[in-house]
Amino acid sequence: MNVNAERISKLRELMKQHGYDAYVIPTADFHQSEYVGEHFKARAYVTGFSGSYGTAVITMDDAGLWTDGRYFTQAVNEMEGSGVRLMKMFVDDTPSVTEWLAETVPQGGTVAFDGRVLSMGEGQEFEDVLGAKGVSIEYMTDLVDEIWEDRPTLSDKPCFYLEEKWTGESTKDKLARVRAEMAKAGASVHIIASLDDVCWLLNFRGDDIDFFPLVLSYATVWKDHVDLYVDESKLNDEIRSHFKEDDIIIHPYNDIYEDVKRIGAGETVLIDPMKMNYALYKSLPCRIVEGPNPTILMKAMKNPVEIENIKKAELKDSVALTKFIYWVKNNYDKIEITELSASDKLTSLRAEQEGYIRDSFEPLQAFGEHAAMMHYSPSPETDVVLKEGEMLLSDTGGGYYEGSTDITRTTVLGHIEPQMKKYYTAVFRAMQHLSAANFLYGNHGWSLDVLCRQPIWDLNLDFQCGTGHGFGYLGSIHEPPTGFRWYIVPSKNEHHQFEEGMCVTIEPGIYEEGDFGIRIENNVVTVKGEKNKYGQFMHFETMTFVPIDLDAIDPEELTRSEREWLNEYHKECYNRLSPFMTDEENAWLKEYTREI
Amino acid sequence: MNVNAERISKLRELMKQHGYDAYVIPTADFHQSEYVGEHFKARAYVTGFSGSYGTAVITMDDAGLWTDGRYFTQAVNEMEGSGVRLMKMFVDDTPSVTEWLAETVPQGGTVAFDGRVLSMGEGQEFEDVLGAKGVSIEYMTDLVDEIWEDRPTLSDKPCFYLEEKWTGESTKDKLARVRAEMAKAGASVHIIASLDDVCWLLNFRGDDIDFFPLVLSYATVWKDHVDLYVDESKLNDEIRSHFKEDDIIIHPYNDIYEDVKRIGAGETVLIDPMKMNYALYKSLPCRIVEGPNPTILMKAMKNPVEIENIKKAELKDSVALTKFIYWVKNNYDKIEITELSASDKLTSLRAEQEGYIRDSFEPLQAFGEHAAMMHYSPSPETDVVLKEGEMLLSDTGGGYYEGSTDITRTTVLGHIEPQMKKYYTAVFRAMQHLSAANFLYGNHGWSLDVLCRQPIWDLNLDFQCGTGHGFGYLGSIHEPPTGFRWYIVPSKNEHHQFEEGMCVTIEPGIYEEGDFGIRIENNVVTVKGEKNKYGQFMHFETMTFVPIDLDAIDPEELTRSEREWLNEYHKECYNRLSPFMTDEENAWLKEYTREI
Repeated sequence: MNVNAERISKLRELMKQHGYDAYVIPTADFHQSEYVGEHFKARAYVTGFSGSYGTAVITMDDAGLWTDGRYFTQAVNEMEGSGVRLMKMFVDDTPSVTEWLAETVPQGGTVAFDGRVLSMGEGQEFEDVLGAKGVSIEYMTDLVDEIWEDRPTLSDKPCFYLEEKWTGESTKDKLARVRAEMAKAGASVHIIASLDDVCWLLNFRGDDIDFFPLVLSYATVWKDHVDLYVDESKLNDEIRSHFKEDDIIIHPYNDIYEDVKRIGAGETVLIDPMKMNYALYKSLPCRIVEGPNPTILMKAMKNPVEIENIKKAELKDSVALTKFIYWVKNNYDKIEITELSASDKLTSLRAEQEGYIRDSFEPLQAFGEHAAMMHYSPSPETDVVLKEGEMLLSDTGGGYYEGSTDITRTTVLGHIEPQMKKYYTAVFRAMQHLSAANFLYGNHGWSLDVLCRQPIWDLNLDFQCGTGHGFGYLGSIHEPPTGFRWYIVPSKNEHHQFEEGMCVTIEPGIYEEGDFGIRIENNVVTVKGEKNKYGQFMHFETMTFVPIDLDAIDPEELTRSEREWLNEYHKECYNRLSPFMTDEENAWLKEYTREI
Repeated sequence: MNVNAERISKLRELMKQHGYDAYVIPTADFHQSEYVGEHFKARAYVTGFSGSYGTAVITMDDAGLWTDGRYFTQAVNEMEGSGVRLMKMFVDDTPSVTEWLAETVPQGGTVAFDGRVLSMGEGQEFEDVLGAKGVSIEYMTDLVDEIWEDRPTLSDKPCFYLEEKWTGESTKDKLARVRAEMAKAGASVHIIASLDDVCWLLNFRGDDIDFFPLVLSYATVWKDHVDLYVDESKLNDEIRSHFKEDDIIIHPYNDIYEDVKRIGAGETVLIDPMKMNYALYKSLPCRIVEGPNPTILMKAMKNPVEIENIKKAELKDSVALTKFIYWVKNNYDKIEITELSASDKLTSLRAEQEGYIRDSFEPLQAFGEHAAMMHYSPSPETDVVLKEGEMLLSDTGGGYYEGSTDITRTTVLGHIEPQMKKYYTAVFRAMQHLSAANFLYGNHGWSLDVLCRQPIWDLNLDFQCGTGHGFGYLGSIHEPPTGFRWYIVPSKNEHHQFEEGMCVTIEPGIYEEGDFGIRIENNVVTVKGEKNKYGQFMHFETMTFVPIDLDAIDPEELTRSEREWLNEYHKECYNRLSPFMTDEENAWLKEYTREI
């Protein structure tokens, strides 16, 4: 029996003892973070699937793992022998977790989960859907903890203060804006449970979860002060002094669950159902108004200081990635390069950049057929050597004091097949179309997305994921409330219209299972264009400057305007990057960014 | 005082007597028809604005007319001197009618209207929004009737039966499908108040409202029979015999208001809030389920017989329109042609086609700056002579036994300015992009629309209306539930995903106020393409074959694929049209459809 099958077997023993018919394990910490600290990797521990997104459901005689198109191939591979079935989310008639549970668990049965790692909205959906079927919920339980020997403890790494030269706005001003929104919503208290919102609001960062420099914490904003729940040992004097100035009172991390029970009956609490865990929500004794955390929109609309900084970060990151591409293309046939060594090389090139803090998310270096998995990240077990005639997909990013990046380039090694070129050219055209879009204010991701899909749909192909997402400033790399998708998923907070200052990725791809994967991803910022009687026109300004691999572009497939865009982009790449390159690199870069 | 100001003054006298603070006059008959019979043109009678869409609101000291971008210019012109202000719907912060009334009418005041000419949804919105402000509603009143001397009577024109060779489906089969949907919705009775739904379901047509060959009627569908409310004198023996066969029982038109009051308390009635008038809704004594009329989706998904027929109608109409373009282009400088005489000419060319019944909507022939009004229709007061250097926008259609069309071409007379050419080329590209779209099943108008807008948005221009709409088979020319718009208007039933067999228009434009207007409109049918692991691909098949005016196309502005599309389209136009043309026409057509 494989190790995951054994763990599931132990879990079933406990489920039997407790009388649970199903146990649900989402990918989350107490804050619905996208990446979680080691302590919280319960789903991976149980199923073996290590991707960043997925929910496992275990019953006495079945087990399923729900994840999206990015991870279908990877999940099947990693869960082999575990007995867990892949449930392909958003594909055909795949039921949602709650739909499946409602079908599967008998009336009078019990579905259990740790209510702290499920969002409030999810918990309520469980309550509604299962309640209607006569199925009970047990949400104050953590069975995985009982079977997990040597479970890693919570992080105790130090925090750092983010000065106004990086943030562009003081905590005092941010708090004033949040309090104004609270007043509009008729709320006297506002509980923020999402780490990126707390860190953005209070201008500090840390190192408590994987990749994102965030701090395990909760904040309760009152009219005259803030209660911050955080492990105080992580805070240095600078932070403490700033917090004192802004009437931010520090409490032990876990005290919030008891403290909120004492909120006065006369208070009205503003909470975000998508940004609060179910157990915390169930502890609230007072009137509640639901709405998005006001910080979400504020944080997404980067201010001019942040945008200037992000552009600096993007340039640094473009330099590192371009140096990396030079290194790979010129060395893969001379020295042994593997996915993992390539990954280390790129991280080291990023680390040479001033202001580098860490990679901004789990680096994806996927060679050849691995790239078809969309979000494959190499491990010692899967690592392969790079070789001629295939492509390396590098989806990586850096976190700098100036901001975070999320860039993908697919690099050709030697000569590739015409089909790869054809598809690569289509992916470039897809990225270009959306990058060059001019649109009226009021457009959403769902109204613009087809511009990017069209060259790929024209081939009767599709990439089965969103086309892009907002990204944070040393926050979450997938940042709400805006993204690109051709349909509306009500449960996803990505459907806000584009506002000035919103930073998003554009990352179409084509993925041929068992063969190859292509993705090109740039980071753009939303800017205002002409305003006239038709309204306010908007467009995207590209901030990433890493050349597109001309070895994979078929110029015959480009329209004049696509070709002009590409030539102009490459000219900009050369002009911006060359001051940071060696002579050898520049000689190559000149040719690599040649006009076509 | 102008005649409309006088009528409004009389209306205010009556309002004063009744104690009404505001009186609302929508554009509707008792069935929410888009065009209405002469009897129902109350809004035009009062305000002077003759467009097909708009709502007037009269208060004691103010008067407003709400309409959309198609009619802004026309409304201002026609209402000059009436004292009625234009309220531009969907532009900036223009309040909706209810929002404005809630702001304007004092607490304790009364808003009145004829509840039979307001939709149920609209009436309820009045109830909710005004009720919350302490404003009362009076909906059993028709003040316009009291001031309208010589008001036209209701139509008594004869009906005709539509044989299965035209409809492709018997009434019996349609009724079985509707009854199955009623059962799914848990309804034992279904009241249909929309004329196109009644006529589609019962396979008959008539001549009771302008342009659309529909019959003033209501149908109540029971499990074992149908109660049809219609003026029996309009029905011939053939229809009566068919109705008898299908257990359709005929009742006087107006009896429905009393009959529905006697529906048993045990019954459940399915009604469509968007397709039923408020007064009828208020008469229902039983349990109600709300949902779209099942006939809407069935009717929109044309069956293979209908599609084959529609293609025949489109070809006939393409022949007539192409002959018209030939005539205009070759005669405008030889004989005097005006908008009205051009309109007559085109109608006469259509009438020469076999199976022609009537024009399918009010013909729009707009020359020069008139075309900037988007939906201008000429009248003796506004008629102008066609002359060199400008363009004629012809948005017209024919109703044939084989179906209805809605086609626009903009025709160049002589030499035009480069800007007009540039804009014309952009409009063609817009139309072409959407016509050629290949997309996954599940796409909506709002997810595809940008393909069409993009060439126009790229010029920082926009057309302030939808890009296209479903169109009926001898029904309404704007047929729900699908259309193209880049944003979602919840109150509009146009947001259904594209289904096989749905027929829609694609009609982008550019409108330069006081100067010119350009629109190109084709009719397409939604068809299935390749099905693979990504899903079911779909595309549009163009059914209209009228050449695009190459005198206004700048080939330099076209991409290779746009140019190829245009050349292929023109080849098809020539091949399909030439058998129906004279030798002179064909000589011209050959050149007019030349390869570029």
